[in-house]
Amino acid sequence: MAPTPTARPLPNVLLTCLVPVASWFVIRPLLDPSPPLPALFASVGFSIFAFLAALYLIPALGPTFVKANLKGRDLLKVYSDPIPESQGLVCASIYILLLILFIPFPFSNSVGSLPDSGKTLEGLQGVASLHHELSIYLSSLLSLLMATMLGFLDDVFDIRWRHKLPIPIIAAIPMLMVYYAEGGNTHVVIPIPLRRFFGVLVNLGPLYYLYMSLLSTFTTNSINILAGINGSEVSQAVIIAMSVILNDLLYLPWPIDFKIPLHLLGSQAEVEVGGAWHAGMAYGSSELVDRHLFSLYIMLPLLGVCLGFMYHNWYPARAFPGDTLCYTTGMAFSVVGIQGHFSKTLLLFFLPQIFNFVLSCPQLFGLVPCPRHRVPRFDPDTNLLYASKVLFLRPPSKTASFVLRIMSSLGLTALTTHPSNGTILEATNLTVLNFLLVRLGAMNEKRLVQMLMATQVTGSLLAFVVRYGLSGLVYDGDRR
Amino acid sequence: MAPTPTARPLPNVLLTCLVPVASWFVIRPLLDPSPPLPALFASVGFSIFAFLAALYLIPALGPTFVKANLKGRDLLKVYSDPIPESQGLVCASIYILLLILFIPFPFSNSVGSLPDSGKTLEGLQGVASLHHELSIYLSSLLSLLMATMLGFLDDVFDIRWRHKLPIPIIAAIPMLMVYYAEGGNTHVVIPIPLRRFFGVLVNLGPLYYLYMSLLSTFTTNSINILAGINGSEVSQAVIIAMSVILNDLLYLPWPIDFKIPLHLLGSQAEVEVGGAWHAGMAYGSSELVDRHLFSLYIMLPLLGVCLGFMYHNWYPARAFPGDTLCYTTGMAFSVVGIQGHFSKTLLLFFLPQIFNFVLSCPQLFGLVPCPRHRVPRFDPDTNLLYASKVLFLRPPSKTASFVLRIMSSLGLTALTTHPSNGTILEATNLTVLNFLLVRLGAMNEKRLVQMLMATQVTGSLLAFVVRYGLSGLVYDGDRR
Repeated sequence: MAPTPTARPLPNVLLTCLVPVASWFVIRPLLDPSPPLPALFASVGFSIFAFLAALYLIPALGPTFVKANLKGRDLLKVYSDPIPESQGLVCASIYILLLILFIPFPFSNSVGSLPDSGKTLEGLQGVASLHHELSIYLSSLLSLLMATMLGFLDDVFDIRWRHKLPIPIIAAIPMLMVYYAEGGNTHVVIPIPLRRFFGVLVNLGPLYYLYMSLLSTFTTNSINILAGINGSEVSQAVIIAMSVILNDLLYLPWPIDFKIPLHLLGSQAEVEVGGAWHAGMAYGSSELVDRHLFSLYIMLPLLGVCLGFMYHNWYPARAFPGDTLCYTTGMAFSVVGIQGHFSKTLLLFFLPQIFNFVLSCPQLFGLVPCPRHRVPRFDPDTNLLYASKVLFLRPPSKTASFVLRIMSSLGLTALTTHPSNGTILEATNLTVLNFLLVRLGAMNEKRLVQMLMATQVTGSLLAFVVRYGLSGLVYDGDRR
Repeated sequence: MAPTPTARPLPNVLLTCLVPVASWFVIRPLLDPSPPLPALFASVGFSIFAFLAALYLIPALGPTFVKANLKGRDLLKVYSDPIPESQGLVCASIYILLLILFIPFPFSNSVGSLPDSGKTLEGLQGVASLHHELSIYLSSLLSLLMATMLGFLDDVFDIRWRHKLPIPIIAAIPMLMVYYAEGGNTHVVIPIPLRRFFGVLVNLGPLYYLYMSLLSTFTTNSINILAGINGSEVSQAVIIAMSVILNDLLYLPWPIDFKIPLHLLGSQAEVEVGGAWHAGMAYGSSELVDRHLFSLYIMLPLLGVCLGFMYHNWYPARAFPGDTLCYTTGMAFSVVGIQGHFSKTLLLFFLPQIFNFVLSCPQLFGLVPCPRHRVPRFDPDTNLLYASKVLFLRPPSKTASFVLRIMSSLGLTALTTHPSNGTILEATNLTVLNFLLVRLGAMNEKRLVQMLMATQVTGSLLAFVVRYGLSGLVYDGDRR
């Protein structure tokens, strides 16, 4: 019997065609006349290479991982072949290496990424801020690399989840240190209704650093705990990355002009996007363009590797991500949120994760017992997944019963009660996956991950409505 | 039986006294009036903390490593208890984390590391170059972290040595990319006798990048192949780090004035060191002071962790370094050599490693068979080490015989020949350790590592004589 389930075949001819396309994107900025936003061209090229590299290296390195004892059984399958585990390490390595090779494109004078004086486009960075931007980019890379390293150590040393919750804070340190050394802004804009108490701007000082480190903990762990079925971690990363990219694109200088009729959604004004080099929604602010370009440089290759990995992690999975993937992607989202100064918008793209976290709280904080695995239960006969349950060996406390009954009445969990005295005997585990199974009934694993993705997409759509529609109610255009 | 040989006891009272000392060094730069070279104070403090952290964390984490299957048997001992392997990872993690926490000291205006205008000391950096310096520091950290990561992957996946030779080049990429993006200098100063052909300065262009990547391969692998007995890797790192630190100190602005009578060694002039803030041998060049300060920031904490680790790695070893330690220390030496622009001086401190490499060439390049382990042979009865031998199953080729006979006549190897026809039957393995055993006779492991250290110290003394004595014959003061 083969040591792993057969690797998924790749459409080689189709993929070969992508190589010249990617090469063109990388080489184009070096040719004269250089295109507007040349580094973005290169970033697109690198991202296609990232996709291809992940697609080919994941199956190629699978046996090496299995040999080094980095393997796992798929608990929701009838077969028990070892599947290579921690292959997020391959994704992370490709990703970070490409981000490093990308350095000269935005940060070197020689690559012609800077428009000559005289033909400066609105909203594009100048030479002066180059060193500063490079420091920020490098500190972000350091944080990403530390997250990868810590994720892999977690996989190798199998750290218990209660102990590993604060680990992402360590990975965030380089970013925080450079933010501090460069005299980073620690002011936040106050929502309009609260301005009478705090004023327009409040300096959070050290609290701002606490906020940034908690953000990295949240983005990392929230993806990690919404896991357990094939493709769940990587599909979250893919959809969040796409949402961030879409949001970034709104702030670039587009040569076309269109309006979004957001007043229909309650915004105070229509949102005008673009117009001949009007820097999109940045309205001519080169700082905003810079920040969102930076975010694109980080997000595009992440999307590339994640899509490549998803091909092999899709049901039935031929590769497992391990904690490494969650740590790296989670840190990448924190990096763009913090360095791009749009952490509130970023958090909106994590609505399903926030929901999952709130739902999990009774189990995370010990009110309801928390088994080691809360993944749905697999029935080999029907090939369907059912919501997994926590059994109460002792009757739950009064508080726990109260919380569970409320959650049950909201449809968030299903309870089994004692037929005579009504004591709670069982409750479905409090995760989004089990919630979906409780609401929609048993389904197979592929269908469940599709439902999860649909939830994530819905969350992102809602996020855009809130960000560009409703936020007009509590914020004006002041975006310092 | 205990899972590992008992951890070495620590003099807790003595060590506790170091905590306030280290704290004072870290806090002193924040107090007014700030001392000259305030960041150097902090660096000394961090290095003491690095020493303490390594001293306590190495034994504390030993069982975790053994549990994660990162363990090895000591081949040169009578007992076969598992010893934690790859603990260089602990050293590297402490080291890099401290280097990151150190960032605000030299690179932030707020910590007062910059003298106020008006009382600017000669040879100290200005605000302008701060961003630039920070980029260089961050790219160095990235290279160090990549080296650590790759070293650990090497330990986990057990990469074959022929495949892993070029791995350090990957770790050097961040450094090279930033060097390129920042428009780094690729000119070299030509020795006086060759100037009639090439001029004073030659632009090596891309060849300079090749040189830098080969340097990182050399510093990393050369320490790795001079290994095999307790304390060998870390003692090399300690002595090289001390040599680099001593060399750096010569370029700092010292308040005392003294002369080194180097004309006795053939130098064209006496070397005048120091004099009231005359920036030591930098002769008022702030660039030279900056470079050597940078080197000290990298080297001091390295010395700290290495000394802490050496305590546990000393004969009989309670912890093994793994490839991780060699990768991280090797990359640290490359970083200071390249970013400090003293790679030629650095290579002089690697004389024993160069000797070991040249000696190993016949085995590395396949002329003489190379067994997987070339460590000396241990005799359990006498507790002594003997030079290990390579057995010729087939008679060696004519070239190999010729080379071996020359090496034998130079005393570099001992041959066993056929009593009648003189064919070579055996030769001692071509490493410095076996060479020492051939020349000085069998000795125990502790004595052998002491001999190795003596060799390394002698090499460094010779290096200083060559650098400050003989180099005057081929270089003038031009040090661009």
